Amino acid sequence: MSSQEKSGPTETKNIGLRGVVVADSTISKVDGERGILIYRGYDISALARKSTFEEVIHLLLVGELPKAAELETLQQELAACRVLPEPVIATLRTLPREAVPMDVLQATAPLLATHDPEAGAPTFDACRRQALRLICRLPLLVAAWERLRSGREVVAARPDLGHAANFLYTMHGEAPDQERASIMDTILILHADHSFNASTFTARQIASSRAHLYAAIAGALGSLSGELHGGASEPVFRMLQQIGTVDRVGEYVTKVLDNGQRIMGMGHAVYQVTDPRAEILGPMAAKLADQAGRQELYQIANEVLRVTTAEIKRRKGREIYANVDFFSAIVNSMIGFPVDMFTPVFAVGRIAGWCAHYLEERFGGAHAKPTIYRPKAEYVGRYCGLEGCTWTPINER
Amino acid sequence: MSSQEKSGPTETKNIGLRGVVVADSTISKVDGERGILIYRGYDISALARKSTFEEVIHLLLVGELPKAAELETLQQELAACRVLPEPVIATLRTLPREAVPMDVLQATAPLLATHDPEAGAPTFDACRRQALRLICRLPLLVAAWERLRSGREVVAARPDLGHAANFLYTMHGEAPDQERASIMDTILILHADHSFNASTFTARQIASSRAHLYAAIAGALGSLSGELHGGASEPVFRMLQQIGTVDRVGEYVTKVLDNGQRIMGMGHAVYQVTDPRAEILGPMAAKLADQAGRQELYQIANEVLRVTTAEIKRRKGREIYANVDFFSAIVNSMIGFPVDMFTPVFAVGRIAGWCAHYLEERFGGAHAKPTIYRPKAEYVGRYCGLEGCTWTPINER
Repeated sequence: MSSQEKSGPTETKNIGLRGVVVADSTISKVDGERGILIYRGYDISALARKSTFEEVIHLLLVGELPKAAELETLQQELAACRVLPEPVIATLRTLPREAVPMDVLQATAPLLATHDPEAGAPTFDACRRQALRLICRLPLLVAAWERLRSGREVVAARPDLGHAANFLYTMHGEAPDQERASIMDTILILHADHSFNASTFTARQIASSRAHLYAAIAGALGSLSGELHGGASEPVFRMLQQIGTVDRVGEYVTKVLDNGQRIMGMGHAVYQVTDPRAEILGPMAAKLADQAGRQELYQIANEVLRVTTAEIKRRKGREIYANVDFFSAIVNSMIGFPVDMFTPVFAVGRIAGWCAHYLEERFGGAHAKPTIYRPKAEYVGRYCGLEGCTWTPINER
Repeated sequence: MSSQEKSGPTETKNIGLRGVVVADSTISKVDGERGILIYRGYDISALARKSTFEEVIHLLLVGELPKAAELETLQQELAACRVLPEPVIATLRTLPREAVPMDVLQATAPLLATHDPEAGAPTFDACRRQALRLICRLPLLVAAWERLRSGREVVAARPDLGHAANFLYTMHGEAPDQERASIMDTILILHADHSFNASTFTARQIASSRAHLYAAIAGALGSLSGELHGGASEPVFRMLQQIGTVDRVGEYVTKVLDNGQRIMGMGHAVYQVTDPRAEILGPMAAKLADQAGRQELYQIANEVLRVTTAEIKRRKGREIYANVDFFSAIVNSMIGFPVDMFTPVFAVGRIAGWCAHYLEERFGGAHAKPTIYRPKAEYVGRYCGLEGCTWTPINER
């Protein structure tokens, strides 16, 4: 308990561990001051512009961008597992159509464990194979649920399509053109990892008890489903819809800020300059809105950004920037995802990072944690001395 | 980020947060030096001897032992929700019989969210009602799976039986006598809470993103399924079986310790004296073994305890004590639970604590956390300067 004595309870207590360094990691670096996000040494701007999601999966899980033969092998491995077990589809059919997609995902992802003979196998290779199965089946679950809840049949993946294209194909029933597939790749790459965010920390913590990968991912999905984490792009979109026209932006923003509330999608706990993911998604949102003839949605967003920036500067004397959720709300909508599918789409990207962190937590060698995450709480409740309060029979209470 | 600067990375990093105080809590106090466990002010020894699990549910969720009318209301509320939605039973039927019970639980508990119209409702009262539904349905899931996987039909709960008795009734198909029901109460009470253990910390962390209760419980179940956490009584039982006879204990213990390994169920990260739960379960195990005519199992355990204590004293000059898993392995077996159901039984008790911590995390007033749990990692991976490593086309890698 020496570390407790040294650090003292006031420094780590009741702050949500904000700013507390809990581990070493080799996976990603968030440079909040400069607005840079690095995966395994590579700037995400380069990865988003030049790589596919498959390349990034390899980078995150193995630590290096794949050589041609390695990518070929990975693509074959992914294609081979890109199918849902029949009983899992049968379960999807039993769910009420109005079920929240994140709830559906969280219930059916761990169901996959019961159909994976390797679940629980304790070697790196077995866990890496489980990771590939989860990475390629999570989008299938999302797509299958979207189809079933809207009365359409599940579409099987096409072996000739890549990961991003298959996600769109299995959801919409038609193969996307090259540009759309490439945009989907970019969305997934930008969401793939972000150091010890809440859901990743949850995954690592579950991994630290040596539970299997499916258990860790179920927990991460739960964390992501909370409105303070992955659920932020959904309210951004609802906000833009609610505002409705560009001329109503000023009034809306002023009113929200007057009430002491935040504008959704603006500001970030770590980035003190522009979120590098928003920098890529912003122009993409503009282009897609143009193509779709839905320029006003983008214009409303842009005006929210402009007014909020000016108002925060005026009121608090500081800068504020759009975060990843701000423009991904527009991009996701333009790509054809219903608004309650935005967080599941986030998960379809982030699962690559969750899996990489799981592998590092359990097999990271020098960077593996020595023990289960087991912090302390300070008891501040009722106390009747060492013997405890006197138990009284029910009729005397 | 001032707290990071103050505490410095070396004090909290890579130690699994062991000994680090992360929050205030009013729910339970673990006094490791004196071997005392307190729920809301009450010593668990008193609760285990005198209360029912229902009383402890009320104590943990509301903070007080119930008055007679309150207990009556609680029992009615629990009885009203003690039924599984049909689609959830249908899903259980689709699972392979060899599926690991904890996997089944982890997949089907969040499925309950899709059938709970209140899931996600953000008030204390709505969350408390969800907690009651989960507390009374988790044992039904465990029992239903045990029956289905062994080719028997699901048994509906009986409104005239209490929580503990219904758990045994729905699993075994016959109502337990008063003594067995009371033992089941004790087992559940002893497992109901233990401050910020790993699974509870997971639940609180998921709660901190404002995800709903089902999401938090899914994560907690995942954490509990790891062999370093809830999975410990199962290997204790397998160890006792493997040893087989009392005369082989000495050889077994010596060999394990010679190999630098631990004896399962011995020693605890927090308790420096006897685990207070083991103090209650030990005599209970002896009595049940006597009644069942399986004295040798208890004798083997007792001999493991004696030899391990002596050997650790001789080798390391320190005391070691049995922990909760040591004797619960025997008690669980005597009560009729298959060995792979030991961890699910743990969950059926611990869910009361998980729910109490969820409520405190979100609605704890002064003790609620101000923000999502979001620690930091120190990036120690490849670094090519601010611009990142140079991305090279695949054929040049």
